[in-house]
Amino acid sequence: MRTGKAYLECLPREKSWELWQNKLMSAGYFTDLPTETLPVEQALGRVTAGCTYAKQSVPHYNGSAMDGIAVRAQDTFGATETTPMHLKLLKSHEPFVPGGCYIIDTGDLMPAETNSVIMIEDVHIENASAEIIAAAAPWQHVRIIGEDIVANEMVLPEHQVIRPADIAALLSAGLETVEVVAKPKVTVIPTGTELVARSHDLKPGAILDVNSHMLCAAVTQWGGDAIRHEIVPDNYEQIKQAVIASLATSDMVITNAGTSAGTEDFTSRIFAELGEVLVHGVAIKPGKPVILAFCQGKPVIGLPGYPVSAMLTAELFVKDVLYERQRLPIPAAQQVPAVLARQLSSHVGVEEFVRVSVGTIQGKTVAAPLSRGAGIISSLIKAQGVLVVSERSTGLPAGAMVQINMFNRQQSETVLAVGSHDLALDILGVFLNRRSGKLLSAANVGSMGGIMAVRNNEAHIAGIHMLDDKTGEYNIPFVNKYLTKGNWQLVRLARREQGLMVLPGNPKNIKTLEELGREDITYVNRQRGSGTRMLLDHLVPRTGLRVEHITGYEKEVSTHMAVAATITAGAADTGLGIRAAATALGLEFIPISHECYDILLNFPPGDITAETIITILQTPAFRQEVERLGGYDLAEAGTVLLKM
Amino acid sequence: MRTGKAYLECLPREKSWELWQNKLMSAGYFTDLPTETLPVEQALGRVTAGCTYAKQSVPHYNGSAMDGIAVRAQDTFGATETTPMHLKLLKSHEPFVPGGCYIIDTGDLMPAETNSVIMIEDVHIENASAEIIAAAAPWQHVRIIGEDIVANEMVLPEHQVIRPADIAALLSAGLETVEVVAKPKVTVIPTGTELVARSHDLKPGAILDVNSHMLCAAVTQWGGDAIRHEIVPDNYEQIKQAVIASLATSDMVITNAGTSAGTEDFTSRIFAELGEVLVHGVAIKPGKPVILAFCQGKPVIGLPGYPVSAMLTAELFVKDVLYERQRLPIPAAQQVPAVLARQLSSHVGVEEFVRVSVGTIQGKTVAAPLSRGAGIISSLIKAQGVLVVSERSTGLPAGAMVQINMFNRQQSETVLAVGSHDLALDILGVFLNRRSGKLLSAANVGSMGGIMAVRNNEAHIAGIHMLDDKTGEYNIPFVNKYLTKGNWQLVRLARREQGLMVLPGNPKNIKTLEELGREDITYVNRQRGSGTRMLLDHLVPRTGLRVEHITGYEKEVSTHMAVAATITAGAADTGLGIRAAATALGLEFIPISHECYDILLNFPPGDITAETIITILQTPAFRQEVERLGGYDLAEAGTVLLKM
Repeated sequence: MRTGKAYLECLPREKSWELWQNKLMSAGYFTDLPTETLPVEQALGRVTAGCTYAKQSVPHYNGSAMDGIAVRAQDTFGATETTPMHLKLLKSHEPFVPGGCYIIDTGDLMPAETNSVIMIEDVHIENASAEIIAAAAPWQHVRIIGEDIVANEMVLPEHQVIRPADIAALLSAGLETVEVVAKPKVTVIPTGTELVARSHDLKPGAILDVNSHMLCAAVTQWGGDAIRHEIVPDNYEQIKQAVIASLATSDMVITNAGTSAGTEDFTSRIFAELGEVLVHGVAIKPGKPVILAFCQGKPVIGLPGYPVSAMLTAELFVKDVLYERQRLPIPAAQQVPAVLARQLSSHVGVEEFVRVSVGTIQGKTVAAPLSRGAGIISSLIKAQGVLVVSERSTGLPAGAMVQINMFNRQQSETVLAVGSHDLALDILGVFLNRRSGKLLSAANVGSMGGIMAVRNNEAHIAGIHMLDDKTGEYNIPFVNKYLTKGNWQLVRLARREQGLMVLPGNPKNIKTLEELGREDITYVNRQRGSGTRMLLDHLVPRTGLRVEHITGYEKEVSTHMAVAATITAGAADTGLGIRAAATALGLEFIPISHECYDILLNFPPGDITAETIITILQTPAFRQEVERLGGYDLAEAGTVLLKM
Repeated sequence: MRTGKAYLECLPREKSWELWQNKLMSAGYFTDLPTETLPVEQALGRVTAGCTYAKQSVPHYNGSAMDGIAVRAQDTFGATETTPMHLKLLKSHEPFVPGGCYIIDTGDLMPAETNSVIMIEDVHIENASAEIIAAAAPWQHVRIIGEDIVANEMVLPEHQVIRPADIAALLSAGLETVEVVAKPKVTVIPTGTELVARSHDLKPGAILDVNSHMLCAAVTQWGGDAIRHEIVPDNYEQIKQAVIASLATSDMVITNAGTSAGTEDFTSRIFAELGEVLVHGVAIKPGKPVILAFCQGKPVIGLPGYPVSAMLTAELFVKDVLYERQRLPIPAAQQVPAVLARQLSSHVGVEEFVRVSVGTIQGKTVAAPLSRGAGIISSLIKAQGVLVVSERSTGLPAGAMVQINMFNRQQSETVLAVGSHDLALDILGVFLNRRSGKLLSAANVGSMGGIMAVRNNEAHIAGIHMLDDKTGEYNIPFVNKYLTKGNWQLVRLARREQGLMVLPGNPKNIKTLEELGREDITYVNRQRGSGTRMLLDHLVPRTGLRVEHITGYEKEVSTHMAVAATITAGAADTGLGIRAAATALGLEFIPISHECYDILLNFPPGDITAETIITILQTPAFRQEVERLGGYDLAEAGTVLLKM
């Protein structure tokens, strides 16, 4: 029997970072920087390795800064409007004579013995003479040699990021090449027998290697030179050889374990054999199994296999090391205070990184936690930021004030949709972005959760489809019951078909809801509070069947698509859901009912977003795009049903 | 006689931008975006052209989320600590039997008919049986197909910048390529007969083409695909052919005129011949001669020849167009409020862009204007931001509250040095940056300006070398006279040699100050208030000579290096200055006197920067680096002379 993973002591993140940083500093990883020499015009964004000094002055000659005449200033003293003075116009090849002048253009070399320029606008030229009506000061309108940069002067100090204007300055100063800090070479080794490189080789149980591409992109974004190693299977000797070979050619080696158990143990033993393991296991979630080691003078990092864990641990333990190694400024994380939309539980002793959607609702910045699964890459796509929950916390109540580390410093305004999810919402998001530049971020918590989120001003939009068991009416009774005053309005999005999804060919020959009572049929259910669950609970008793008799009634999943996926996988025979979900996964669909999917809009007076959304719902382009999914009727889309 | 430049009406910037933006919008320049298809792993930082939809679900099978045993949940009901249950351990090839279970690792496919995983830590395995002490809920620790992303679901909406995690999501969803917005191709054409491509071809009157490299780098930074055209001389037909050829292969054409008069007129006539000139001349400084045109469906821009003008106008009229064309978010300019350190004059009717150094001094953010010359590329290097002076303003008084548009959002803390400049200050800046990460920014306003800047809390450091005519004492009498209470201290930096600089070989055979009275000798002077000027004015009368008898006494320049450069150019025979300046330009140096170059430090109590600077001044590495310049004695460096 396997003994489970043998973690070394699980260290707090700060302690891990300290050990890591101290080791790298004492080993000279941030000071003995390799450099390379580049043509100046290819050095954009690179960091100067040393101070650069001008090889020539800029300008390199005394030149005119204006179109005009070049004069000797002392010859002009005494000229005024009432006592104009006439200077003799000399040809450019003629030597200077006192009282003479030359026509000169901007940038032209000042003729010998002249030391001042009078602008052409202030000169009256007739025959071979120039009339002036004011004296010229010495060196006026002349660009003196070295006025900008003097030979041997420092042009750029060391460790400066080179910008376009710096390129101009270096070239002007006569430098054709510049020594810059070399990009750190980082090899990323994906390990795991279950990994496959391409999606057409993907069979159940196999995992597509996407992490190595994500990590290489992250390394690139952080200024490094990323090298992706081919996939190495879970074999001690093969992984070891891959690490040894990569150490020889890289400044940093990252292995990314598959999620299967064996790989990570191999990794840690290999690192220990080749050098020193500083940290194995950090008290964070996700990302706990990270390994920080130092082998042959180089940092070697074992990142966990789940994509979210891999990305977050790379940000914690790779990013700043790469920036510092290159002397690139570390981008400061922007923090915003926000109100937590939902209660969050947490374990003492583990620092947790929770992805959140962030939006401003009625003047209040709200953070809505997204899925916390380490495997849910889409949560990283949808998140606007991360909430760090302290290792001393047992959790946070809804409404708590929290600090969110924002992912992008450049934020679009976010419209938060919390409630029952529908594919039409994603399409609404695209149209809204086109019209207003706003970003729609959707969190799926069911219809009831949506109404509550609007009531608490924690959502701009809530998608709901709730059937009142007594009246048979959709949504309006619930909104009237739970919402009182406010700025909300209830708007029709679509009528959509609900039905039973079954495998192609309908192998169990299911036709009606009554048949869910059959012993040979297993059902997959939606969670309590979801509109689909309410529809089922409304309809089933009317057929004479009792829900307790449905096999699988207790198997709850939280989206239409998860119902469809469960059926596709053969883990259930049927489930109730919308046609679009069945279509998406190629299932057959047995229509049972129509329901009204409406949206609650919650924007303050004067905010035109609600208007914009209603307009979008009424446009033919939006309606066609949604109806194309199948099972939708948008004839009433954009109708305001209730307004407060 | 030339008639001067025939500008069309000079338009305000906002009006120019409006005409420009409207033309490009109405021509579909921001909507009909060319696209290209890239392998997903090469799409980092690119912008999705359309919405991307998943080709496969993620995960694509029901898999275990833990190491443990796979069971059928209903078989486990009733297991408790007091009534443990035993499940039969099945081999992976054996078919499922009720009450059976399989050993399963994280990521493994769930065996047929199992629907739940019990963690290995909660299982006691003995012989062929697994003892459990709690019931398993259906689907616990199982990653259900589509839990993350469902086939056909939207993975990324249109016009989204692709980040590392997005690459993972796209690949996971079965996408191997992604359609992205193509990078706009921008051809930059340097024009001007006086331009040369390489610095070894540089003769007086010739100008090194650095702008095209700078502009190509800027285009690259703004996401474009920059193509540098070779230099085109000032010839109507040649420039026209270059524009026509570039239009055929580019999405935007930029010409960059030389500073000589003819080029710009050609440019505007050519644009008018090939299309429509929207704007010729904008009421801004620098950058007035910019030309905005639209030819053959493409924007064509004539940027002015001075590097600062070219860069600022590119930022005004090219940057946002490129961002918008790619649907990249336009980085918001960070604005900071600051106190203006010096009075600024300005002309009504012209909006002026003034480069400034910005630092926080005793709790007050101060902006010190740098050189305003359009040709002073070093001012762009030294600046931390730009102050925009309204076209309605006649100027701003010292102490005015202004808004500064910062260049980089990521700022190092800046130490402002205002006063007399010395090359040793640049070296001090490098050492300070190494120790504290702070950036030293120096503005050269002479010794007296430095004392005043410290008095007004507009400088952290002031370099001074002022000789008291009465006592013959350096610096201390002036500090005592002008500074009262405060946090400042006066610290010795160096004794440095002052002397007369002359051409190699000393052609006029100058040996002493008295000889400045000779008729055949022209002198180049420093500005009033500078320490060198005070030294001259102190020493000359003691030789019996009167300053009025020095030819060129009225020719003022503002730096040691400008004095040296003036002599190198033959525009004066000699001037007083420090040995380092003579050495830099290969001049001969006739020592006249030693002077004390000290620095005033002005940091609040508790700020360790003053300490750090004093420590640096005392280190042998710093002293050697400065003494290497020649003419410096740092034996007393770091000695505190006065303290308040």
